[in-house]
Amino acid sequence: MSGRLADLGVDVAHLTICGDRPADLLAQLRFLAADGVDLIVTTGGLGPTADDLTVATVAEFAGLPLRQDPQIRQTIDTVIRTWRQVPADATLPDALVAAIDKQALVPVGARAIPPTGTAPGVAVPAADGRPAVLVLPGPPHELQAMWPTAVRTDAVVEAISGRVIGEQRTIRAYGLSEPDLAVTLREADDAVPGLADVEVTTCMRGGELEIVSRFDGTASATYDALADLLIARHGDKVFSTDASTIDDLLVSRLNGRTVATAESCTGGMVAARLTDRAGSSAYLLGGVVSYSNEVKTGVLGVPAELIAELGAVSEPVAAAMAEGARRVTGADIAVSTTGIAGPDGARPGKPVGTVCFGVAVAGRETVTVTRLFPGDRDSVRRLATTAAFHLLAAAL
Amino acid sequence: MSGRLADLGVDVAHLTICGDRPADLLAQLRFLAADGVDLIVTTGGLGPTADDLTVATVAEFAGLPLRQDPQIRQTIDTVIRTWRQVPADATLPDALVAAIDKQALVPVGARAIPPTGTAPGVAVPAADGRPAVLVLPGPPHELQAMWPTAVRTDAVVEAISGRVIGEQRTIRAYGLSEPDLAVTLREADDAVPGLADVEVTTCMRGGELEIVSRFDGTASATYDALADLLIARHGDKVFSTDASTIDDLLVSRLNGRTVATAESCTGGMVAARLTDRAGSSAYLLGGVVSYSNEVKTGVLGVPAELIAELGAVSEPVAAAMAEGARRVTGADIAVSTTGIAGPDGARPGKPVGTVCFGVAVAGRETVTVTRLFPGDRDSVRRLATTAAFHLLAAAL
Repeated sequence: MSGRLADLGVDVAHLTICGDRPADLLAQLRFLAADGVDLIVTTGGLGPTADDLTVATVAEFAGLPLRQDPQIRQTIDTVIRTWRQVPADATLPDALVAAIDKQALVPVGARAIPPTGTAPGVAVPAADGRPAVLVLPGPPHELQAMWPTAVRTDAVVEAISGRVIGEQRTIRAYGLSEPDLAVTLREADDAVPGLADVEVTTCMRGGELEIVSRFDGTASATYDALADLLIARHGDKVFSTDASTIDDLLVSRLNGRTVATAESCTGGMVAARLTDRAGSSAYLLGGVVSYSNEVKTGVLGVPAELIAELGAVSEPVAAAMAEGARRVTGADIAVSTTGIAGPDGARPGKPVGTVCFGVAVAGRETVTVTRLFPGDRDSVRRLATTAAFHLLAAAL
Repeated sequence: MSGRLADLGVDVAHLTICGDRPADLLAQLRFLAADGVDLIVTTGGLGPTADDLTVATVAEFAGLPLRQDPQIRQTIDTVIRTWRQVPADATLPDALVAAIDKQALVPVGARAIPPTGTAPGVAVPAADGRPAVLVLPGPPHELQAMWPTAVRTDAVVEAISGRVIGEQRTIRAYGLSEPDLAVTLREADDAVPGLADVEVTTCMRGGELEIVSRFDGTASATYDALADLLIARHGDKVFSTDASTIDDLLVSRLNGRTVATAESCTGGMVAARLTDRAGSSAYLLGGVVSYSNEVKTGVLGVPAELIAELGAVSEPVAAAMAEGARRVTGADIAVSTTGIAGPDGARPGKPVGTVCFGVAVAGRETVTVTRLFPGDRDSVRRLATTAAFHLLAAAL
């Protein structure tokens, strides 16, 4: 939702999470109001169980009584009857009637947003120096389906009407450390006049450094000067200047070609990420998760003697795995991963975090590389998955 | 961290997130203090870039000046020199010196916790009606490595010493809807005396319903009565009463047997989840991601005519995929997924969200089932992955 709000030019100052305790939620709502936000958006707590108390708590916060909205009640009743295949003339059990009654309660003066599951959303207009409140369902598909209607309610449109639509630019780098970037940003403090007008935040995630800059239109030239300096110092590590991700870059570089995977330590994470997007069947043919050495040999054709001699975590085995994936799937390009995710498995010269990669491309010699990733099992697997994407993109 | 704090018996009332803006962070710290928490734990913002301002902001919140800790400074200096291979007698560039100076600043009276990356943690004792503050690094592996030391600092030990170590029990159900559970919980309100002493919260996640109950020891019998009622009403759907997950259950039921996967729409997510744990090589031999029909046929041996006649998303194809995975890997049991994750791909009689599963077990007839999952592409894939785990566990 922060991303969607940013798309609308709305700046998110606070993100809070609380358990199903009305007192905690109320305290958070009051804090946000006291901090002067224009709009509070809540998700979750609209269900039928007694711990789902968002609407009642928001009503208390806003000092509004609750009333049952008959139209909404009818809608929920119909949804439930359809789902449970109960005819319109049959009586529902008392407990279910109570649940429906509860979900149809709306604060007086607020607008109910038709349910995309069973629970309606609620848009409470701002008043008396308190912000507007938009109450949305928790389940992602219900939330996403309700969003377009929700942001068009009068309460929300008015609450955000005062926003200054600024610019936001994202530069992404891989293989650049935060300390090295910090050195360049300090250089920029001196070299780029007016840099204080550009709000720069950085975040290292999955091995990638995300540099987000926010500024209003008048500082556009300042941002360009900053971006030029970053490219001048780190251009070899920067892979995106328009917020596009390595996933976007890889898909565009594949450009009609097909890809396959051969994974050991990443266990399927690379293939899974390659199939995240709609339309991925156009480029991802498939892959093999060859966790055991027998599967590396039996399915990918990696010679057993090679594994016995050099170990499964070696560049020649990675090469054979990638070539095997190409062979059994017919893909134009394949990437392999074989490594030690940990915590066990370290060998002399191969500590936990060691991962070998192979990239096999039609008509070219297979490329291999060994990397050492920090952190625990999950960290090694995630960093290796991202690395596989960068290796594929680089090979294309 | 909420989970680790819960292990210590510490109740988490609020979880807040803010951007790299000191004013927002300060407002959040003041809100939490005003709400009367005993301890605030922060993560992130300890890096070397100018937007990393947690320590300075916490110092401002606590009304404490900052001083440079020479011992910590030396530690960071050594870490940086080692990493960049700079000899002890060589001068570091000014900008790097500035970054190290910044990371070595600690509020007066606070205790610095030795870095697990470059940044130290900070433990600020409670004072003057304000809570203790524990400042930790953001990167998960640094945070996790620092945690044992951090929770043993005097500031934290004293802050949480007043906690009441209550009980927490988790029941997990699959195929049980929140409305149906709500009916039973309302029944419990009448049928179980003293239920108000048990705090029950429920959450539907990935198709599984998690029912968490918190109570102190004196309400133990009340909880047992509630649990008995839940089992009486929904025992066929409850798969865990001791907080263990379906992943735990599956591994224990495998009990020495091996498993393989054949995935289409889930793209590797099932295999990836099966390899999440250390030691998974004992049971997961491998899998095939057969995204294209040619790979289903070429690698798994699914007859092309079967796919042509019934479509890839059909139970006979799911069966053939699972049997193929068993055959090419030698595993005792295999699960397959083939479905329409969306948003495209719907066919007559096969809407988006339709997923067929096959479970092939040595010496038994292959079991198949078709399910229909709600939501977007990501939702369908995640729900199908969880369903695959439940199908495997059920077959064992």
